[in-house]
Amino acid sequence: METMSEQKSRLFNERGELVVPKAVVGRLSLYLREVQHLIRDGNETTNSTELGYLLGVTDAQVRKDLAYFGQFGHPGIGYRCQELVSAIKNIMGTNSTWNIALIGIGNLGRALLRYKGFHDQGFRIVAAFDVDDQVIGTQVEGVDVYDIHDLARVVSDQSIRLVAISVPSHAAQSVVDQVVEVGIEGILNFAPVTISVPSQVRVIGVDLAMELEQLAFTVVNRDSKSEYKK
Amino acid sequence: METMSEQKSRLFNERGELVVPKAVVGRLSLYLREVQHLIRDGNETTNSTELGYLLGVTDAQVRKDLAYFGQFGHPGIGYRCQELVSAIKNIMGTNSTWNIALIGIGNLGRALLRYKGFHDQGFRIVAAFDVDDQVIGTQVEGVDVYDIHDLARVVSDQSIRLVAISVPSHAAQSVVDQVVEVGIEGILNFAPVTISVPSQVRVIGVDLAMELEQLAFTVVNRDSKSEYKK
Repeated sequence: METMSEQKSRLFNERGELVVPKAVVGRLSLYLREVQHLIRDGNETTNSTELGYLLGVTDAQVRKDLAYFGQFGHPGIGYRCQELVSAIKNIMGTNSTWNIALIGIGNLGRALLRYKGFHDQGFRIVAAFDVDDQVIGTQVEGVDVYDIHDLARVVSDQSIRLVAISVPSHAAQSVVDQVVEVGIEGILNFAPVTISVPSQVRVIGVDLAMELEQLAFTVVNRDSKSEYKK
Repeated sequence: METMSEQKSRLFNERGELVVPKAVVGRLSLYLREVQHLIRDGNETTNSTELGYLLGVTDAQVRKDLAYFGQFGHPGIGYRCQELVSAIKNIMGTNSTWNIALIGIGNLGRALLRYKGFHDQGFRIVAAFDVDDQVIGTQVEGVDVYDIHDLARVVSDQSIRLVAISVPSHAAQSVVDQVVEVGIEGILNFAPVTISVPSQVRVIGVDLAMELEQLAFTVVNRDSKSEYKK
């Protein structure tokens, strides 16, 4: 295993630019889930052939993907599952818990507050914000709902670095401007509009239609083994 | 361009089993979005190097992925964007509209009914179902809400093949059993539980935590160019 600083130095070129392609980072999450499943099923080790099979890439691609971040394999063993999970969480930044703010307590916002999958992967929604006086000052799913005007104070008090935005499309950019103003570093955008942010702020947009496309494909091609079932 | 039957024959081996890895199908959606973006930006052609760069895979991987389904490139030109979009939609089965039923009109269900992204990619929620008498018989976001006991009739009348399930976890398996019973072929499951289905029914589970992981990574590694911004 390399040290953290050796791993980190590999992520950037001499101009300080990140050199890891977006899709490699996407596959890190998939590797993580598959190795978590392997552990749950009682496996202690895995290898690039198995992970490649599970993800549908070549074993060379698995080794190349992980090589961006360091050397994780052991000769004659492959990858130790627990070690690989820790390493990937370390790379993803999810080895400690992130405090998240949720903005917009409409239907989607309430659904996200109720969503169980975040906590298991190291994310905790610690504060919610809205503009509706009816909901401000209440708790929803055990989370305090604040006036959006208290954003700066709450974000600072609770060490919040990421927000999930589930406001109507027409309000999205205004909310984005406010969260950028108080120093939020990353935005998970559920509003189906493109938003503008300064270059230091990261945005990920959620595309639920892509999941339906995958389902359509598997149904159209269903005269086959159930290779696609998650 | 090959014929559809030539393309289809390539998807199955001599035992009738689908031979396309899951991740290749996942990348088809990503290729589709990138080519749709290229078209929106005024591009008429692209190539495996450009698509590989956009997705963070090698150009050889792009060619190998698409080769599962046929021959789409033109010597000296690369891929024609419109042609590639049509071909991928043809492969995904989204070249015509799918009628979807939504089961569970809670917060997430209402959010999904309001979600604009589905329609653009060929999906239309045409009916909603619930067990709550307060909401049965009403319209939500312009969609009729039916009693779950009317599932068989509505599914048949409206030629519904796919359902999205947004019911509480404890109710998920019971709902799944009912939709399987009436012949539904594919399930998009938002309930954060594993569900059992017969082998001929396809299931995709939505993992929203994966999106947050991607965001965390980009924030942890943000001392870099904005290569990750969508």
